[in-house]
Amino acid sequence: MQKGQLVYEGKAKRLYETDQPDVLWVEYKDSATAFNAAKKATIVGKGRYNNEISSLIFRMLHNRDVTNHFIQQLSETEQLVQRTTIVPIEVVVRNVIAGSLAKRLGKDEGIYLPKPIVEYYYKDDALGDPLINEDHIDYLQIASQQQLMDIKNQALKVNDILSDIFTSCNVRLVDFKLEFGIDRAGNVLLADEVSPDTCRLWDIETNKKLDKDVFRRDIGSLTEAYDIILQRLKGEQNV
Amino acid sequence: MQKGQLVYEGKAKRLYETDQPDVLWVEYKDSATAFNAAKKATIVGKGRYNNEISSLIFRMLHNRDVTNHFIQQLSETEQLVQRTTIVPIEVVVRNVIAGSLAKRLGKDEGIYLPKPIVEYYYKDDALGDPLINEDHIDYLQIASQQQLMDIKNQALKVNDILSDIFTSCNVRLVDFKLEFGIDRAGNVLLADEVSPDTCRLWDIETNKKLDKDVFRRDIGSLTEAYDIILQRLKGEQNV
Repeated sequence: MQKGQLVYEGKAKRLYETDQPDVLWVEYKDSATAFNAAKKATIVGKGRYNNEISSLIFRMLHNRDVTNHFIQQLSETEQLVQRTTIVPIEVVVRNVIAGSLAKRLGKDEGIYLPKPIVEYYYKDDALGDPLINEDHIDYLQIASQQQLMDIKNQALKVNDILSDIFTSCNVRLVDFKLEFGIDRAGNVLLADEVSPDTCRLWDIETNKKLDKDVFRRDIGSLTEAYDIILQRLKGEQNV
Repeated sequence: MQKGQLVYEGKAKRLYETDQPDVLWVEYKDSATAFNAAKKATIVGKGRYNNEISSLIFRMLHNRDVTNHFIQQLSETEQLVQRTTIVPIEVVVRNVIAGSLAKRLGKDEGIYLPKPIVEYYYKDDALGDPLINEDHIDYLQIASQQQLMDIKNQALKVNDILSDIFTSCNVRLVDFKLEFGIDRAGNVLLADEVSPDTCRLWDIETNKKLDKDVFRRDIGSLTEAYDIILQRLKGEQNV
């Protein structure tokens, strides 16, 4: 496999073409951003952790019949993925009240939800990724009704699987953000990454934060937190 | 009918008990507020216009089989309504992009929507009436799934009827906000008011604003605009 032209650079990753038209080469960067990139830093090792953790989680999802764009890990910071057209919706699944949901509903962080809440955010930095509903999505024509139903069902299935995996690791999956792509055949495929950058993960006993909130809120070493997640997941990878 | 104790005072209305437990006496005030009450004024005559217009519209909706809480107009500024428990959701129906939707989606005001967009806002001044989705409503337990379906269907029916009525008056119904109550039998009933305070209304030919945006944006005389709406509706009241 040959690494080709840079096709996209995001806040946390670079995507390159390869000699196969349907395969992209992903390079995880050591940059951390929060609050729509108002807060930025370089954190050595972060790219490696996210690549390792995301590769591990995508493999675990594959093993549990959740198809996704991951093909293989290439190095500490690189992986190959299937090329898709990303749907510009950030799909958030929540099991416990935290972050923007606490502010939106005026509730305390840490309250358990009797059923998961699913939210859609319009992926647009200039607009600050606003919350949108199904009527907005229909108007924007960014996903068909069928695709949106597939996305919601897949997101809830991923939530069930990851909640179980993390619970086995003594980690609470508080909430997480997924992105989906549309492949050449028009199917919805889980894409982007699943890592402590995109999940809220709390130690199940102490509620200690083991995710990007460590950076957002300046409450410790991000790489120490991510290392705990990686080590605990590695202990569970054959589950 | 006897006017009793004040039971509720909102930004634009006062509600009193009567000698009938299921009937409330509504008094429209001359106060105008915008931006979550950050902007306030007293506008003599506003209460009369909203009471007259809302009474007229509620009667028109009754005649077209949309049951609602309106019983009868008592005076220029007063009406009797059926007592309900208000569902704390502001239901917004949009036919043309304007206001917060333009900001949310980064689109220009004035774009016609191919289908109406329905939005739910959590009626909570302290939280700034945030946009919410059906999962939030389910968690908050402020309406059952059946009640929410009734609310959405009624809101879309009201939109069809009012769009026709306003078009006959050479007025474009751009968007509007409804509130619903639950009556003693558990049924959803259209409540609150329908007036230029709660609708965006544009002259169909000139796009001149004939609603509370005149006050929000300081672009003319509010009572002149509301008077145009009242006169045009009066010309259509037998339609």
